[in-house]
Amino acid sequence: MEIDIEKLIAKLTVEEKIKLLSGGDAWHTQEIESVDIPNITLTDGPHGVRLEDKEAGEFFQSKPATSFPIEAAMAASWNQDLIEEMGQKMGEECQYYDVGVLLGPGVNGKRSPLAGRNFEYFSEDPYLSGKIGASFVKGVQSEGVGTSVKHYVANEQETNRMVVSSEVDERTLREIYLLPFEMIVKEANPWTMMCAYNKVNGTHMSQNKKYLVDVLKDEWGYEGLIMSDWGAVSDKVASIKAGLDLEMPGPGKEDEKALQAFEAGELTIEEINARVKVVLELVEKVLTEQKDVDECDFEQNHKVARKVAEESMVLLKNEADILPLAEDSDLAVLGKFAQEPRFQGGGSSQLNPYNLETPLAEIKKHGTVDYAPGYEDEEINEDLIAEACEIAQDKDKVIIFAGTTEKIECEGYDRKDISIPESHIQLIKEVAKVNQNIVVVTNSGAAIDIEEFEAQARGIVHAWLPGQAGGSALANILFAKTNPSGKLSETFPIAYEHNPTHLSFPGDIKQVEYKEEVFVGYRYYDAKKLDVKYPFGFGLSYTEFEYSNLELSKRKLKNGEGLVVSADIKNTGDYAGQEVVQLYVKDHEAVVRRPEKELKGFTKVHLEPGESKRINIKLDERDFSFYSEKLGEFAVESGQFDIMLGSSSRDIRAVETMEFDSNDDLREPLTVNHSIEKLLEDERTGAEIKAILDEIDIDQDNNFYSILLGMPLTVATGILRSFNFSEEKIEQLAEILENTDEEL
Amino acid sequence: MEIDIEKLIAKLTVEEKIKLLSGGDAWHTQEIESVDIPNITLTDGPHGVRLEDKEAGEFFQSKPATSFPIEAAMAASWNQDLIEEMGQKMGEECQYYDVGVLLGPGVNGKRSPLAGRNFEYFSEDPYLSGKIGASFVKGVQSEGVGTSVKHYVANEQETNRMVVSSEVDERTLREIYLLPFEMIVKEANPWTMMCAYNKVNGTHMSQNKKYLVDVLKDEWGYEGLIMSDWGAVSDKVASIKAGLDLEMPGPGKEDEKALQAFEAGELTIEEINARVKVVLELVEKVLTEQKDVDECDFEQNHKVARKVAEESMVLLKNEADILPLAEDSDLAVLGKFAQEPRFQGGGSSQLNPYNLETPLAEIKKHGTVDYAPGYEDEEINEDLIAEACEIAQDKDKVIIFAGTTEKIECEGYDRKDISIPESHIQLIKEVAKVNQNIVVVTNSGAAIDIEEFEAQARGIVHAWLPGQAGGSALANILFAKTNPSGKLSETFPIAYEHNPTHLSFPGDIKQVEYKEEVFVGYRYYDAKKLDVKYPFGFGLSYTEFEYSNLELSKRKLKNGEGLVVSADIKNTGDYAGQEVVQLYVKDHEAVVRRPEKELKGFTKVHLEPGESKRINIKLDERDFSFYSEKLGEFAVESGQFDIMLGSSSRDIRAVETMEFDSNDDLREPLTVNHSIEKLLEDERTGAEIKAILDEIDIDQDNNFYSILLGMPLTVATGILRSFNFSEEKIEQLAEILENTDEEL
Repeated sequence: MEIDIEKLIAKLTVEEKIKLLSGGDAWHTQEIESVDIPNITLTDGPHGVRLEDKEAGEFFQSKPATSFPIEAAMAASWNQDLIEEMGQKMGEECQYYDVGVLLGPGVNGKRSPLAGRNFEYFSEDPYLSGKIGASFVKGVQSEGVGTSVKHYVANEQETNRMVVSSEVDERTLREIYLLPFEMIVKEANPWTMMCAYNKVNGTHMSQNKKYLVDVLKDEWGYEGLIMSDWGAVSDKVASIKAGLDLEMPGPGKEDEKALQAFEAGELTIEEINARVKVVLELVEKVLTEQKDVDECDFEQNHKVARKVAEESMVLLKNEADILPLAEDSDLAVLGKFAQEPRFQGGGSSQLNPYNLETPLAEIKKHGTVDYAPGYEDEEINEDLIAEACEIAQDKDKVIIFAGTTEKIECEGYDRKDISIPESHIQLIKEVAKVNQNIVVVTNSGAAIDIEEFEAQARGIVHAWLPGQAGGSALANILFAKTNPSGKLSETFPIAYEHNPTHLSFPGDIKQVEYKEEVFVGYRYYDAKKLDVKYPFGFGLSYTEFEYSNLELSKRKLKNGEGLVVSADIKNTGDYAGQEVVQLYVKDHEAVVRRPEKELKGFTKVHLEPGESKRINIKLDERDFSFYSEKLGEFAVESGQFDIMLGSSSRDIRAVETMEFDSNDDLREPLTVNHSIEKLLEDERTGAEIKAILDEIDIDQDNNFYSILLGMPLTVATGILRSFNFSEEKIEQLAEILENTDEEL
Repeated sequence: MEIDIEKLIAKLTVEEKIKLLSGGDAWHTQEIESVDIPNITLTDGPHGVRLEDKEAGEFFQSKPATSFPIEAAMAASWNQDLIEEMGQKMGEECQYYDVGVLLGPGVNGKRSPLAGRNFEYFSEDPYLSGKIGASFVKGVQSEGVGTSVKHYVANEQETNRMVVSSEVDERTLREIYLLPFEMIVKEANPWTMMCAYNKVNGTHMSQNKKYLVDVLKDEWGYEGLIMSDWGAVSDKVASIKAGLDLEMPGPGKEDEKALQAFEAGELTIEEINARVKVVLELVEKVLTEQKDVDECDFEQNHKVARKVAEESMVLLKNEADILPLAEDSDLAVLGKFAQEPRFQGGGSSQLNPYNLETPLAEIKKHGTVDYAPGYEDEEINEDLIAEACEIAQDKDKVIIFAGTTEKIECEGYDRKDISIPESHIQLIKEVAKVNQNIVVVTNSGAAIDIEEFEAQARGIVHAWLPGQAGGSALANILFAKTNPSGKLSETFPIAYEHNPTHLSFPGDIKQVEYKEEVFVGYRYYDAKKLDVKYPFGFGLSYTEFEYSNLELSKRKLKNGEGLVVSADIKNTGDYAGQEVVQLYVKDHEAVVRRPEKELKGFTKVHLEPGESKRINIKLDERDFSFYSEKLGEFAVESGQFDIMLGSSSRDIRAVETMEFDSNDDLREPLTVNHSIEKLLEDERTGAEIKAILDEIDIDQDNNFYSILLGMPLTVATGILRSFNFSEEKIEQLAEILENTDEEL
């Protein structure tokens, strides 16, 4: 369907235009019958299509759709092609259900494992989030369905999410929280973006012109639509003026106010028309791309959901090769999650699965299984545990299901801690007394406290919330129908309290300070030299991989140039398998404090036993840069950089050092407040200062000399005078001082 | 000498008055000959009297005086009576040298072990600093000599110390950084206070009326003199107006400007007179208390210096009872510090010791000793190490001296890390290959990285910088002439990076953010659940102590009340010894985040073998309080508190729980931004909200309900409306909303 947007805008009254800038109801844009503008449907993702089923009667009931693994799991697959394929399948289901825009993916940062909505986010690392997010968007949009990348920006908690101001410095925003949005906008051009509920540095994101217009539209060149999160608009006029195109849900509560503002000249017709144009462009795009589909291959989509689940599950521990299990093993399967699986997160992403497998049924296909629930809810149930122990004692091996319940982890509120329920821990501990051959399968959307039961588990598989096909995916992993290849998309710390945000999360009703700055996730644990339980990027396999022949295509880089990093990866074990090769960059020295290492590339490679492949990862200037507040842009500081290839962030297998010769002038301006030592060390003032100091009658080995060096010139001259140093020398120092203004 | 100050002020010209508000030279106040106002001498402490010896010719040379252990060591003695006695001895030496005011003690917080001047500060704990500081001040002033408590306030680093702004929230200032000043002002009434170089929250401390006048003078009732640190005044007029009495050193550079300001009416005569009065009062006090002394018992003072050193040294490790050494042992003594002792810190506190002992000579009095220097400086010297190994290999035991050099740790610059020199570490490691019976004696003014050599040391004695009698004190400890009783006045972390200030210390030229807030030292390591190398309050003894019969005189406290905590402490070992009993308080729950425990009392008790004594420690309301920014004062929140007695901060021997029933209303004001859940839980709004929610047709077990609870009323009503909830119920919610204004 083609719409002559210019003509249409000319036809619409101001009232109609304003009406169009809010939804028509909870899940549709506004239709304007008078001029034949139909509405389009927007509906929740990001783990599948959650289309409200009004006929079902029950609140929040939705049409059946494929439930894919949660985003945290998608990222743990580290497989861009697979996630793109998965996105495409979601797009097909959207077309089937006439959904124009799927609300996702969420690409907020996982700064605290407590954040209630972590399962809807990819990673603690912005680069991984950006890459996987871009694949997601490309996949969905390849089917002619829009996405909405959310929640833009700095929405990293549920507590007070609608009123709190995230206080984040610009460098941290750029390097950590804006980065995935920037990458996705530039790589995948999402049809829409969704602004977050929260404020950033004091301004509601729905009214934040700096990030909606200056950064997103002007800097990044974004031309799509920006909608609000559901209920995020508190001042419609301010939102329109700040560049927000569409308020959701609708109808708008402040249309009258907006009209008054227009009549009072506070809101111009140009401002209104600009927003209306974007809304109509989206409607046109959706209607143009809409396909007349009356079939959907849910069986095929189920298989893709299984593949994503298989590639995302992380084998955390495998003592004495307890895994894989032999076919026809005599097993105990314990824990209610085996029969009532934890497969998706609670809240707006919660959908009605088309075909929900249970792990219990799937495991039964491979072995002799006795099952006991072991727990009913979070409370310890001694009877159920006794029953489980009874069953477990004579089995070859025991599979215990554990993890966060929906009561613990859900949109809308944050977790209190990272523990799994007492009832699960107690089950594991009691069973371990009668049978030590325990494999624990854990479900959660973010880090959990593994320490509480690790000693009792010979094997641990972290299954995330694996979607509707999680049961068979898990069985395939356990019985080596597929070799585990997932790697953690976030650090599992030894204790929650080690997390950088502990002591400041979630702030108060007014603000939450992002005090850790860029030191989120592994960037923090590295910098603080803290041991972790399982590091970012970690995951075991049934086989082993060897890294060799790391090569850089260039040893010295200049601005605008790139290089290729290559290495041989060999499967040295007995199983075919996939390795996620991770590339980290370390800046040896910089004017700002930089992380020990940062992920700047990765690739997933499939290898048969004995097979070797050469992998190539490209790096460009941006991969060496940091955001310079001085220059107002990303910049590279000249010097040495380490290029590291690792099997995890703490298992670096090969390192090479190279140099970057940059034009960017990142030297800080010198001021009269800088110490003499600083002026002495700086090439701009060093020679002059040294000449004078060398002539002053003072023993340079004396402590007083060191103390003097630490002083700014302003104070030093005064002190020297009071200690009766030669007036002449002081004059000379003072002269330099006079020439040292705020910016040398 | 009595001065009629009022009369004198009337006689002085404005020029003379302004002149009087700066020093006459580096170490004296201004004399005004016309009206017979003599000058008085101010000179550096805080580890003894550093009176400049002009005749000596050499820069920074001073008259011989007793060099006492550094402040960090004084605090590690946990012995208030002893420190008072020591202060008194310093006072005697001041009288002998006609010094009117001794510049000390320093009571800044040890927030980072890197801070270059840490040796001049007592502790990471403000209570310990306040108590030991008050004893110091009482002691000196008992001899009719003034003290100057410094550096007021938030001067916790050397880097950019003259220009940086310490950005600290009010609660943190009150609970951590102001507290020792407050305690000392209230308990010991110091004659003078010294303002710091740095800014606090943007304002130079020399111009910071809020803390100089509003807090120090008005709130705490301080009536003494406030002088500037040497060179801390950058705007004389602003300083006078902000309550700074005396600029040091002198003469003033801006007297002319001040006169102009007076003439322009910007500076009033009342403001000038108020400052002049305080200066004259100090001069009068000094002259009145001045004694005509021409003898000083330096021998006796040496003994006191030894006693402080003995009580401050901390036995950190004593594997297989390698200590104490038997008399007449065959020993190797290694490390240049044995012969050229590290006994004091560099910079303004560095003095000319009256009688400097060496550990080598003192150890020789007890055993057969071969000595080798082992190192010359920070660089590894293989020849010296080889020589040391040669000597060490056949000895019974080896004593190795190690620690920070003056190059590493000195006023004026901060440390780069907490390592001791490579040359020291290498010496220990090489010697350990030929003789495992190693005792390492460590010298430093703050935490060092023990991990680097701990495995090679069977015994470790941390001797701080123990002053001139440190040699004999150490020998007495090693040979059990005295039983070690020092306890760490700061945490020794496993790695420097674990420190709370890592990643933000020392900030940039403009500011340093005290991001860790009140979580300094053990408060941080506790809250972050981090293991430490040696905890705050830790120290071994040659004997052991048993704690029993902990009793509280009251189980329930009200505002204004106090209680007495008692317990029996028994020496269950074979040596007489002293135990430092530490009392920590823990608040179970509060509206602000409080530390796991805070030191609120301590006592040092001497016990013969088998002897038991009952100790009593008083607590009052303040010991349960925190600083409420809402109320603008310290306040107590009703609830339960643990009273803990410990032998260290991580070795709690007895706990009792009690209740405080407080009148202080610490509830935060409710606003329209608070979540429904918060309003539901609050006694002020709960019933009303609950009644309405119970009537709404929504399944309270549904996730949507939980999400709804997390929303503020403003948003919730809007959302409910768009989801077609009954208008009537929405109206009711909206009504409550209307009644919920900014402060309920």
